[in-house]
Amino acid sequence: MNEPSERPDIMALILAEAEAAGAAGEVPVAAAVTDQEGAVIAMAQNRMKRDSNALRHAELVALETAMVVRGAERLDGCDLWVTLEPCTMCAGAIAHARIRRLYFAARDIKAGAVESGVRFFDSAACHHRPEIYGGLSETRAAALLRDFFAARR
Amino acid sequence: MNEPSERPDIMALILAEAEAAGAAGEVPVAAAVTDQEGAVIAMAQNRMKRDSNALRHAELVALETAMVVRGAERLDGCDLWVTLEPCTMCAGAIAHARIRRLYFAARDIKAGAVESGVRFFDSAACHHRPEIYGGLSETRAAALLRDFFAARR
Repeated sequence: MNEPSERPDIMALILAEAEAAGAAGEVPVAAAVTDQEGAVIAMAQNRMKRDSNALRHAELVALETAMVVRGAERLDGCDLWVTLEPCTMCAGAIAHARIRRLYFAARDIKAGAVESGVRFFDSAACHHRPEIYGGLSETRAAALLRDFFAARR
Repeated sequence: MNEPSERPDIMALILAEAEAAGAAGEVPVAAAVTDQEGAVIAMAQNRMKRDSNALRHAELVALETAMVVRGAERLDGCDLWVTLEPCTMCAGAIAHARIRRLYFAARDIKAGAVESGVRFFDSAACHHRPEIYGGLSETRAAALLRDFFAARR
């Protein structure tokens, strides 16, 4: 098991992945799943354009990859890291996967479902609530998204 | 284009699929996507157990299959049929896919997100609201689920 000081900065890793997604024409978002020991077991970029599939958000791709890696239906004890606040679909998926801790960077007032929108994890309908850590590396993550959309305008 | 009277009963078709899912040890739920002409372009059973993946709800599998069939990122003009009221994850996916009409059978007071829970399509955060037709073949769909869970107790 790594000591905290030896651990890679997961958010920095996925911000670089998000940047690569943006260079590939995708909205620049990426996600990773770490196991109980803090090891990265899945990392994914947003793939909506490349896969012609509006459901291929980075979170869903990372969660499904981690399920394959673990050979398990759920991801009890694992954590999800993502550069943008998850949407309603992804928040529901995070609860189904039984993610232990959710770390996210930029807040998403428009489509987010954690601190915005339906605030799924705070709703009575939510059957599993992860620990939530929002706003990590928020400045860099928000700038990445802002620059991407500014360049498209 | 088929006249309504010539169309297959989609809900009856997917109720048979849901029954097959139950026989395979899955919670008995199935879904289908029909195109603008009413033709079935994707049909899927709940596959959580068989795929070891808590996100493999029938709706998600059917939507993703339909995207492959159409070679399109979204399913504008298509309808989704499902034997159980969609959960939060699937409701979010339905909005992302831009489904035109949602037809569902049994209501799900515990995990549903259409008429129950976060009522996603009625929330201000929802960017696309399909026309919604709930309660079709509800008696048969609800009995299927009730019998499945009674047999496991």
